[in-house]
Amino acid sequence: MSTLINSLLNKPITHTPIWLMRQAGRYLPEYRQIRNKAGSFMSLCTNPELACEVTLQPLRRFNLDAAILFSDILVIPDAMGLGLHFVENEGPKFTNPIQTVYDIDNLQTADILSKLDYVFKAIHNVKAELKVGTPLIGFSGSPFTLACYMLEGGSSKNYLTIKKLLLNNPEACHKLLNKITDVVILYLNAQIEAGVDAVMLFDSWGGVLTENAYLEFSLPYLQKILNSLKKEHQNKTIPSIVFTKGGGLWLEHIAKANTNALGLDWTIDIAKAKLVSKDMVLQGNLDPVILAVGDKAAIKKEATRILTSYLDANDGNISGHVFNLGHGVLPITNPDHVAYLVDTVHEISNRM
Amino acid sequence: MSTLINSLLNKPITHTPIWLMRQAGRYLPEYRQIRNKAGSFMSLCTNPELACEVTLQPLRRFNLDAAILFSDILVIPDAMGLGLHFVENEGPKFTNPIQTVYDIDNLQTADILSKLDYVFKAIHNVKAELKVGTPLIGFSGSPFTLACYMLEGGSSKNYLTIKKLLLNNPEACHKLLNKITDVVILYLNAQIEAGVDAVMLFDSWGGVLTENAYLEFSLPYLQKILNSLKKEHQNKTIPSIVFTKGGGLWLEHIAKANTNALGLDWTIDIAKAKLVSKDMVLQGNLDPVILAVGDKAAIKKEATRILTSYLDANDGNISGHVFNLGHGVLPITNPDHVAYLVDTVHEISNRM
Repeated sequence: MSTLINSLLNKPITHTPIWLMRQAGRYLPEYRQIRNKAGSFMSLCTNPELACEVTLQPLRRFNLDAAILFSDILVIPDAMGLGLHFVENEGPKFTNPIQTVYDIDNLQTADILSKLDYVFKAIHNVKAELKVGTPLIGFSGSPFTLACYMLEGGSSKNYLTIKKLLLNNPEACHKLLNKITDVVILYLNAQIEAGVDAVMLFDSWGGVLTENAYLEFSLPYLQKILNSLKKEHQNKTIPSIVFTKGGGLWLEHIAKANTNALGLDWTIDIAKAKLVSKDMVLQGNLDPVILAVGDKAAIKKEATRILTSYLDANDGNISGHVFNLGHGVLPITNPDHVAYLVDTVHEISNRM
Repeated sequence: MSTLINSLLNKPITHTPIWLMRQAGRYLPEYRQIRNKAGSFMSLCTNPELACEVTLQPLRRFNLDAAILFSDILVIPDAMGLGLHFVENEGPKFTNPIQTVYDIDNLQTADILSKLDYVFKAIHNVKAELKVGTPLIGFSGSPFTLACYMLEGGSSKNYLTIKKLLLNNPEACHKLLNKITDVVILYLNAQIEAGVDAVMLFDSWGGVLTENAYLEFSLPYLQKILNSLKKEHQNKTIPSIVFTKGGGLWLEHIAKANTNALGLDWTIDIAKAKLVSKDMVLQGNLDPVILAVGDKAAIKKEATRILTSYLDANDGNISGHVFNLGHGVLPITNPDHVAYLVDTVHEISNRM
């Protein structure tokens, strides 16, 4: 079994595996070339050949321990009828954001998997081309995070629309979250059937809530998904990772949600996160800005600090740690520094 | 002594005092009127009569337990030579941001208090007009937060410039932070001499750091300031409040920094924050979005939850809590809802 999957299952490993959120992306010149050829971000996402090519690009350059499918969490709202497009320098936009509670009833959930068929085709292509033993991670946005985008109509500063709904009409908010949850369960199980080796749930915006609201409007839906996922496929165990950005204060709650691993942003000391539960696998947590603007000495220092901190908290054992950033690779990142980080993490953890 | 000061000193109180970050501001039509008359935000800040008037406006409308001086944390970089101005819809900008490490040597620190004399004049005016028994809170930005603005040249998404400096040239970063710290100490002690009854340090951006970097680049400077503040003035004790937004994971460290109170954003459960230290006064922590978009029932529910949560964690005693938002009042907030929140907090806590 691969080092990544072994680590996610808390089995013995000889080095700490590493992959990076947004490892396929704009910091790579070969990505920008394909992206320009595709015309728009969405035509890249929906083209299984190009999505496969872009997924594999970072694996050709770096000794990464996993591939992650190139896609976007917003393909789900798009398939539910909201019409996703990307505005240059403004990020994602929907042609039909949810504007009234009646729009929630009109969300399309029929034939959702056939609308997302391009994702499963891309998975098949990647699995066919990926080196044997390199696992492929599939993913979805969390229901709360997807609902944020669907209600705000794109990125948001204060999340006024979703918070207004959850405060003043919690029933309608739960109805929306339940609809999304049902779709995410179908979507992730179809990804597993198409061949992904692990799944990750990105709760990018859960951290903007109060603890109370997080426990009512985000975590239960993550838990429902995790309880409904295929845990085995083709005689392999499919581990899961949950990442709530800004959720460091709530890890003890998230740890009870039937996940194999907790994704950490960079604000929590990884040793403190390990105190939550000795058995919980941790993924993280280098500040992506350190990789983007730090020199090699600074990158090595911080990677060493994180690896050592985990080791000390885990009785001198590297198992149960997956190295990653605390958020996605920034577009200004120097690819040489990514190569340096990957090799440094392998080297140091192997010596440990 | 006033209820606010008693609560900040952890003495018995008959109701939980409440004031709101940015209680003087754009959500009030009478503020917008004066702001338009002044022409620019800076001409409002630097005019002691208008700054006084704007400070007092919310006290005329609401039964608030304190006034906070109307000013901006960026008056310090302005006085150090950076040239502050505000661009409509873009926020603060500096004419001369720090662009090289040599600019750090050239920061002006001479005659700093005379350059900021308009602030102390405004304090005198407010103290002369404020109802006897209503305390006035003075404030400053934290050295790290001010350094963020001075290096980024305004607001920032990823804090690339300051993080680059602290990673690759920590000595220069410490030099800058020391310079700012010396000025903040002079500034806050002059505010105390001018008559403020409590002081607050706003570390608005400390939460973007790793714990490690926070402990090296933000907290020690907060501590140095707190250790250098006049604790007594005209036979009154002057309590302090420290607020690191996004610092909920680091409260146990902040609690050791010689402050009377910890400001909390809305992401931490106030009962959990009380676990850090039974003697520590807590200020917070209603999500400002709840005040902005919640209906009255939602506002009451959330205020009750916070008050009850604190009460339970403090052995059934309301003392040592100052009610506030977890961040500033949003401009879209309905003033009637502010009045409702203030009265609700008084009523409920008085019954407790």
